Amino acid sequence: MNWGNRLMLNLNDFSLNEKGHLLIGGCDSVELAKHYGTPAYVYDENIIRRSCRAFTSSMREHYDGKGMVLYASKAFACKGIYRLVKEEGMGIDVVSGGELYTALSADFPAEKIYFHGNNKTAKELEMALKENVGRIVLDNFEELKRLDKIAISAKKRAKVLLRIKPGVDAGLHEFVKTGQIDSKFGFALETGEAMQAAQVAMKSKMLDLVGLHCHIGSQIFDVAPFEYTAKIMLGLMADIKEETGRELNELNLGGGFGIPYLSTDPKHPFENYMAAVSKVLKSETARLGLKMPYVLIEPGRAIVGTAGLTLYTVGSVKNIPGVRTYVAVDGGMGDNPRYSLYGAHYEVICANKADRPRDLVATIAGRYCESGDLIQENTRIQKVQEGDILAVLSTGAYNYSMASNYNRVGRPPVIFANQGQHTLVVKRESYDDLIKNDI
Amino acid sequence: MNWGNRLMLNLNDFSLNEKGHLLIGGCDSVELAKHYGTPAYVYDENIIRRSCRAFTSSMREHYDGKGMVLYASKAFACKGIYRLVKEEGMGIDVVSGGELYTALSADFPAEKIYFHGNNKTAKELEMALKENVGRIVLDNFEELKRLDKIAISAKKRAKVLLRIKPGVDAGLHEFVKTGQIDSKFGFALETGEAMQAAQVAMKSKMLDLVGLHCHIGSQIFDVAPFEYTAKIMLGLMADIKEETGRELNELNLGGGFGIPYLSTDPKHPFENYMAAVSKVLKSETARLGLKMPYVLIEPGRAIVGTAGLTLYTVGSVKNIPGVRTYVAVDGGMGDNPRYSLYGAHYEVICANKADRPRDLVATIAGRYCESGDLIQENTRIQKVQEGDILAVLSTGAYNYSMASNYNRVGRPPVIFANQGQHTLVVKRESYDDLIKNDI
Repeated sequence: MNWGNRLMLNLNDFSLNEKGHLLIGGCDSVELAKHYGTPAYVYDENIIRRSCRAFTSSMREHYDGKGMVLYASKAFACKGIYRLVKEEGMGIDVVSGGELYTALSADFPAEKIYFHGNNKTAKELEMALKENVGRIVLDNFEELKRLDKIAISAKKRAKVLLRIKPGVDAGLHEFVKTGQIDSKFGFALETGEAMQAAQVAMKSKMLDLVGLHCHIGSQIFDVAPFEYTAKIMLGLMADIKEETGRELNELNLGGGFGIPYLSTDPKHPFENYMAAVSKVLKSETARLGLKMPYVLIEPGRAIVGTAGLTLYTVGSVKNIPGVRTYVAVDGGMGDNPRYSLYGAHYEVICANKADRPRDLVATIAGRYCESGDLIQENTRIQKVQEGDILAVLSTGAYNYSMASNYNRVGRPPVIFANQGQHTLVVKRESYDDLIKNDI
Repeated sequence: MNWGNRLMLNLNDFSLNEKGHLLIGGCDSVELAKHYGTPAYVYDENIIRRSCRAFTSSMREHYDGKGMVLYASKAFACKGIYRLVKEEGMGIDVVSGGELYTALSADFPAEKIYFHGNNKTAKELEMALKENVGRIVLDNFEELKRLDKIAISAKKRAKVLLRIKPGVDAGLHEFVKTGQIDSKFGFALETGEAMQAAQVAMKSKMLDLVGLHCHIGSQIFDVAPFEYTAKIMLGLMADIKEETGRELNELNLGGGFGIPYLSTDPKHPFENYMAAVSKVLKSETARLGLKMPYVLIEPGRAIVGTAGLTLYTVGSVKNIPGVRTYVAVDGGMGDNPRYSLYGAHYEVICANKADRPRDLVATIAGRYCESGDLIQENTRIQKVQEGDILAVLSTGAYNYSMASNYNRVGRPPVIFANQGQHTLVVKRESYDDLIKNDI
């Protein structure tokens, strides 16, 4: 069985050069490892752009462009990705003052920024208002009142959405329709809380309620939960119209679009989501006598996940007879906590032996002083030794963004590769960076 | 039932002032929250020092001072804690160039530093050698050869220990004696790998093999696994003496000393470990005809765990009838990932209502955009509302050290409190800090 070429080409667009080295963005990953050192996060810029375009074109083609695609920053936030997303004509969502600050530092247009979060601080709400972000998405009554007060004192109106719990819980497998969803996020629909929030917001002189937001899960491969959710949300919009006489014009359906981590994972063209949802939106608005709302969708992982990989250097190979083989690399849970957190799956390739068969079953261990510091257990890789370069695929989302300085190890640099060129987007943390705030 | 005073006094030395506010290090925690903002990590300096002294005095009293207590940096590393540990006359262990750099920046004496880790890079080994650290603890054959090469090229001898897998796996519950332990760390004893490593190290002209190291687990409340391990390790030392004619003089027994997180957790006076182990060391060396080795022990969590707490501000309280009550705070998995990672338990107290009964069962949710971002589920706290200050107890170990910038939230400051005085030890990360390496 040849686990080499075929698998990678299936999972993504990585290919090999004449040396049998893994290419990313047309660059030899082994050369990148030499140039930038390891560990290092490398993204294929073209894969990011292609994913952006899959979403933006689907909004144009299937929904007449009456909407906007927002990149969900939490998957991977830095100035570089904000510049790229801006070039692709998308908006973004942010969930903290720090993401907002980073986006503004990259000259991202404030009016295309949606500010989310279940517990925004007063300082963050003040900042969002001062910087004229497009929308603030209110999560709870305390926050609603907090923003109202701030808006009054700043004498500035705020355009807001309400985050609604639509009673849908979706993920890799079948989705669940629950009335009362057990979540820290949003206003509950079934208890009347959502309606009450709409009424309170409409009474405020400084808050301009323009629409609703929801988010139903992550790693969703099916369109059915989105279709169902769109129906539920339009139903609430119709109820609000009936109850208050006011029609809301914006519907933010959130993200959660699934990506493959393993070659055996399901794939779903991103275009399909908007195609399916648009049909529902068209038929349901007609049925309910509503205008077609301005629609937002929020892909994050779907934009950057498969575009990124992490390069490591092998430090040692330990075979424990009858137990397993540990391959130790120079990174681990500090730069990729997803295996420790969720038991996440990844494909691992030896970048400098990418043309050889993956006939070793090994556990990729990190360098952190914790026995749970593993990147993947019992995965197939090429036979490796000290000094080899390993590439862990599909680490573009929630790796850099969740990275820590555990064991006081500096976080790796981020590199964008494109058509054989490479650009440093985030520098590696130095020892001085680690003690910069120490007194 | 009064869950207030009693519980806290049991778990730790926190007490209340006349306002019913929680005190830490003699400081009003509510005032600290106002002064430094929230979230904030606060340590009672006296509790840290008392734990240090429990270990150092036990080494003096039970083992005639023939050893050293090393603070295990990975639990919490910053310049402030290194200064304190130095004042207490202890050594430290470090597991990265970053921890070493931080310690040296705090003028920690290099000769009292032990450099651990399962995969030290060539650069780190060079740094350790150049800075004259006391010992380098070698984990595997590749590393052994790597250091040998570096030492030859630097023309500098290195004092080394070997990390051994003694075939013991201990933790909160009963310990397991296994021959072949499934671990990424160290040389296996049973396969002869440990003996072989000793022989290889002894052949090196630049490596000076002075002893052995092991580490058998964490949150160990019993002395039995340590007694058993001491026996095993002395047995190996006797075997090495017989095989090579050379007697090793240092035995590092590692850490793993348990601390209580909940008031119902077992407690074990730290003094007991050294008392019990000393007896074994004395009788076994006599039996085996060995000299009494210089002994190292490595408490980390046991030094700082219960000394620290984290202060948060409540942003909203969401009651979902028939489901649960969510109390949202302004921190979460970014500053304390231990609940997400391990389902770790903590006691939570409302700092400004600490004299009231804890009669609300609530789930403490963080501010991060992830439904798994919880600090504790279904825990007893006082009835709280927006603006209240929550203290999560026993967050002194593996909280600051594992903190991330997830959602681009700056990491909280660290404050040392002592006898009514408070000192900032690590500054809060600013927005500019977050983009400092962005290009």
